Amino acid sequence: MATNRRDQLTEIVQAAKRAGFALGSASGPDRRMVLLAMADALERGDLRAAILQANAADRADAEVAHARGEIGLASLQRLTLDERKLAGLGDGLRRLAALPDPIGRVLIDRELDDDLILRKVTCPLGVVTAIFEARPDAVPQIVGLAVRSGNAAILKGGREAARTNAVILDALRRALIDQGFDGNAVSLVSEREDVDILCEMDRDIDLVIARGSSSFVAHVRARSKIPVLAHAEGVCHLVLHGPVDPAMATRIAVDGKCGYPAACNAIETLLWVGGSEAALDACVVALRASGVELRACAATRARHPDTVAATDSDFGHEFGALVLAVRRVDSLTEALAHIAAHGSRHTEAIVTDDASAAAEFMAGVDAACVFHNASTRFADGYRFGLGAEVGISTGKLHARGPVGADGLVTSRWLLRGAGHVAGDYGPSKRRFRHRDRG
Amino acid sequence: MATNRRDQLTEIVQAAKRAGFALGSASGPDRRMVLLAMADALERGDLRAAILQANAADRADAEVAHARGEIGLASLQRLTLDERKLAGLGDGLRRLAALPDPIGRVLIDRELDDDLILRKVTCPLGVVTAIFEARPDAVPQIVGLAVRSGNAAILKGGREAARTNAVILDALRRALIDQGFDGNAVSLVSEREDVDILCEMDRDIDLVIARGSSSFVAHVRARSKIPVLAHAEGVCHLVLHGPVDPAMATRIAVDGKCGYPAACNAIETLLWVGGSEAALDACVVALRASGVELRACAATRARHPDTVAATDSDFGHEFGALVLAVRRVDSLTEALAHIAAHGSRHTEAIVTDDASAAAEFMAGVDAACVFHNASTRFADGYRFGLGAEVGISTGKLHARGPVGADGLVTSRWLLRGAGHVAGDYGPSKRRFRHRDRG
Repeated sequence: MATNRRDQLTEIVQAAKRAGFALGSASGPDRRMVLLAMADALERGDLRAAILQANAADRADAEVAHARGEIGLASLQRLTLDERKLAGLGDGLRRLAALPDPIGRVLIDRELDDDLILRKVTCPLGVVTAIFEARPDAVPQIVGLAVRSGNAAILKGGREAARTNAVILDALRRALIDQGFDGNAVSLVSEREDVDILCEMDRDIDLVIARGSSSFVAHVRARSKIPVLAHAEGVCHLVLHGPVDPAMATRIAVDGKCGYPAACNAIETLLWVGGSEAALDACVVALRASGVELRACAATRARHPDTVAATDSDFGHEFGALVLAVRRVDSLTEALAHIAAHGSRHTEAIVTDDASAAAEFMAGVDAACVFHNASTRFADGYRFGLGAEVGISTGKLHARGPVGADGLVTSRWLLRGAGHVAGDYGPSKRRFRHRDRG
Repeated sequence: MATNRRDQLTEIVQAAKRAGFALGSASGPDRRMVLLAMADALERGDLRAAILQANAADRADAEVAHARGEIGLASLQRLTLDERKLAGLGDGLRRLAALPDPIGRVLIDRELDDDLILRKVTCPLGVVTAIFEARPDAVPQIVGLAVRSGNAAILKGGREAARTNAVILDALRRALIDQGFDGNAVSLVSEREDVDILCEMDRDIDLVIARGSSSFVAHVRARSKIPVLAHAEGVCHLVLHGPVDPAMATRIAVDGKCGYPAACNAIETLLWVGGSEAALDACVVALRASGVELRACAATRARHPDTVAATDSDFGHEFGALVLAVRRVDSLTEALAHIAAHGSRHTEAIVTDDASAAAEFMAGVDAACVFHNASTRFADGYRFGLGAEVGISTGKLHARGPVGADGLVTSRWLLRGAGHVAGDYGPSKRRFRHRDRG
């Protein structure tokens, strides 16, 4: 049975590879037309009804599971589609269509010698596998980014959204076929065991995008022979420094914690450097008013006895809820050391009016995103202007931070000569010109 | 004892991290001065004498090992330094100093809204570990690329070159210190067991560059928690297509096979499409005259009975010696399928006068380097104009093909606002401007 499934998946992956090659070889305008056709499809009335019907069925089951305590409220909300979210999906695909083509870009155009021209050109990765939580709006986003970048995509969505995902994927696939492409370029698998099998196919799958709980991401990373793009956790800090405007600090702290507490770009710890007491006090009042439980160090509790005493394990912890650790630090240097020790290299922010402190923070934090006087919640592919994101990477290689279509391309070195051989070059022989062209 | 070594390595890595941060924070001109000081050091007479003396001692031991059959002639040659190779090392560092600074480059400069400015800026990876064969000229190349890109480097060279490596590294380190930097930014470890320990330090080491035999690279890949940049093998093909000039085909085939048979960019298989018989015949004569053993398919042997019969395992095999597999294919499509099945995604080349066949080949091969009418031996960082290379990557993520200083950088997203929060944006609220500047 397992072998059987392995054979089925091998067929799916091989078909995806062939179909992806055709998609990647198509012109940018042709791939753009596919995105527009997909947006049109999602906006057709009959399809919207079918999607909402499937979603209602998924949701009914999920509500039973929720009542049994098997899934949380946040998961239930992520699963749910409504007319407004649906409208956003078509918009998202149109935005992607409007972005510049990420493939075929000439990164280097270099004359090595007469008639010996080297070009480094972007191209699709090939086949990408995306594993994501029960969140059906991820389907058109990931498929859209894959089509934009000329890749085949194999999607494994959360089982709770299986019916919704299937209806959406079927519509996207039909749009692809209507535009003259092989529908196998996008496909959906639904069994958890499929993930382990796919993660072994390092000859044919080029990238695994893993989203979900940090334990799930760790499982995929440990298992996968294929490079994995993911963030294991989002432990983001907000630092208050100097006599900064309390109103600004408060807005940024409340947005960072309360806007969407389950998001990976929400803040988990507030660090305040001595001297920022006015901003701290305002933040404490506003956060408590928003229902946030504050777990504070002794120095903070001396000012705010109505907070909970923090334990060591509260620092560096991703609460994913209306809970925030708060700690006083003596200096910006100590704040940077705290972040280096406890941060997850996702997004870190400082609120300060001191330009040199801001510069030191921006230079000194080793994270995908480093912000000054702005909420950590901006760390997002759509907000960054990438059109959408397949996920956020906390790794330093390839793509870092929110990953859009540019993160799904690689490059090749193309050399065109006229019979040139390497043995003709060297000391007291021909010399390379290495001249970059226009 | 093992724990002890782990503690020592932890100290080395932590010191490298701090020193690397200072190096990465330095200006481009300051890092350039370090490279020039390193070049000066390697060109000083007393140091050259010391290097050659150490190399003579390494070589004496290696000759004993060679006589016992423990190491091959190619390894002995790689180990040996002479005045000419030494002069090349200083030149290489000066070339690197002349290249544009790879860090601090603004890749994206985008106005998200009034006073909300997003920049994607290149920055060093942090700490890179390079594990390489007994080849002392790799020491200044890797150190030079690390300094150019603001990274700390921990080197593990082949034990046979230990004395030579130590003298060279000491000189480079002193040049770094003379320029006001912390010498811990470059260090050398020499025990094989160190590799396994370093490969676990994924919190502090950002990249492992692995060079050496394919079994060694596979060992490092399997063991490492840190991303590994490497090529496991170099199985490069040369395709002859159509009635191409036999003299050109011969030059490219002989250069590809005989220039340096142990190189990863040497050809291992010659594929000839029906119609290229004249070129094939000329290649066979010239290759045999150069001492190449040809292992041929039945169709090839029908024309050239004086070749050896190939077995299936000869195709896709990296001989690394004066041996070449030869196979007739019916079409360019069949050649592409053969390469897809047997190639190692390193470098593939076609010799043809047919522009549309060349275009089909360039578009259809999934490899780091794809060449038309040029020798596969050009696939090299120096020849590509990268100044040097830390290695060649056959992976598709991050860096692909010859990896120079650009492959040792990552990027960060820096956002500067004036109190902006994400909750202010959305349908019927503020809209992002997403305007790229300059």
